[in-house]
Amino acid sequence: MKVTLSLEKSKSNDLAIMVDVLRASTTIVAALDNFKKILPVSDKNLALKLSKKMNCLIAGERNGKKIREFDIGNSPIDIQKKSGEILILTTTNGTRVLNQIKCRTLIGSFINAKSVANVALKLANEHIDIVMAGVKGNFALEDFLGAGEIIKYMKNVELSEYAKSALLASMNKDEVDKAVKDSLSAKKLKKLGLYKDVEFCLKRNISNNVPYYNGKYIVNLKDLRNLGSITQSPDRSSS
Amino acid sequence: MKVTLSLEKSKSNDLAIMVDVLRASTTIVAALDNFKKILPVSDKNLALKLSKKMNCLIAGERNGKKIREFDIGNSPIDIQKKSGEILILTTTNGTRVLNQIKCRTLIGSFINAKSVANVALKLANEHIDIVMAGVKGNFALEDFLGAGEIIKYMKNVELSEYAKSALLASMNKDEVDKAVKDSLSAKKLKKLGLYKDVEFCLKRNISNNVPYYNGKYIVNLKDLRNLGSITQSPDRSSS
Repeated sequence: MKVTLSLEKSKSNDLAIMVDVLRASTTIVAALDNFKKILPVSDKNLALKLSKKMNCLIAGERNGKKIREFDIGNSPIDIQKKSGEILILTTTNGTRVLNQIKCRTLIGSFINAKSVANVALKLANEHIDIVMAGVKGNFALEDFLGAGEIIKYMKNVELSEYAKSALLASMNKDEVDKAVKDSLSAKKLKKLGLYKDVEFCLKRNISNNVPYYNGKYIVNLKDLRNLGSITQSPDRSSS
Repeated sequence: MKVTLSLEKSKSNDLAIMVDVLRASTTIVAALDNFKKILPVSDKNLALKLSKKMNCLIAGERNGKKIREFDIGNSPIDIQKKSGEILILTTTNGTRVLNQIKCRTLIGSFINAKSVANVALKLANEHIDIVMAGVKGNFALEDFLGAGEIIKYMKNVELSEYAKSALLASMNKDEVDKAVKDSLSAKKLKKLGLYKDVEFCLKRNISNNVPYYNGKYIVNLKDLRNLGSITQSPDRSSS
């Protein structure tokens, strides 16, 4: 199994793991405790329209801030207080990057690193590409370190040199915590009074949820019940 | 002082440090013990023509192998057995990348990390960009870790998140040694019987040489005698 690391765009035709540690990935993982499905929508107005039509909760941010008309922001802590059938989510980077990936996609973070790594290894045929969401096209340290944390749980794979560099960088937990808390994204969240979210996003393996994007909805592959039906790339023509 | 990290092309208009650990950077640093100047030439045939005209030693490789008509390969160990006024050098990546950088440029490696960092901090006005040579446009782990080693010696600077990731990855010396020895570049050199070069390239701070590319020649800034005259970017129109 080949494991590579990319920024924003995926190099794999097989399986991708999208990583947007602060905070889309973490929010999605946490949300799957209380929601059956998540509908990621890039456009804020479309998201609002859909939430009214479908009568479901809507969460999202632009530049870290909750969007005014939305029920809640992109907060993994706040989302745990809510529940429902479907959650609509729109974020600055995460949902946009998700919609750009053209192969089967899982969603990974520090809080589900081990579980997402295990499911990816079962699901992929030959090539797992870990896709860092980054910040508006730029490298983001927290996603690089989150990727390294996921790679830690992949044994007997052929790592690209970039993937190996993320693994090396994420070896020391205290240094990783310090670096993520000191990242540009974390500083921005701190300014917005959302530092508790940063601390939550750094918890390790507290969730077994494995979000899978089927081209329209994000569902939970936690118990692998649906593995048989998703061994091929989804048809995205309808999304 | 801002410190950033780039692949192949420089983002700075101020000062760059080119890093091609295996082996151009290391060979250049080592060569400055016994040569006054190095003329880096991208084109192999031009290099040959110049060496005949100037009657000087010519070193170089393509894909790791010594070029047949040349005196020696791109070997930091072999170069130490030679001496002269001028050395002509051509390598697959290093010399090509060097010629692409448009600001003042130093050359860094594991063997001169501390010295090159110190001189860079004295020489730069506001922005040091560490440029990994990579391999034919691709990320190379040894250059990322070499960059991290140089960054270690830069205190009180504002690191970009990518630069910080290299610093994090290069914290554990044993892991760095293992990763570089296991890199694609090292494996290729091993196959060519050049593993001793890899081990040499991993020595830490055995040289105080600080190669400076003046747009035509690489000279030694070891003792900083010429610092006054190079506080501006060189005029490359004649090179």
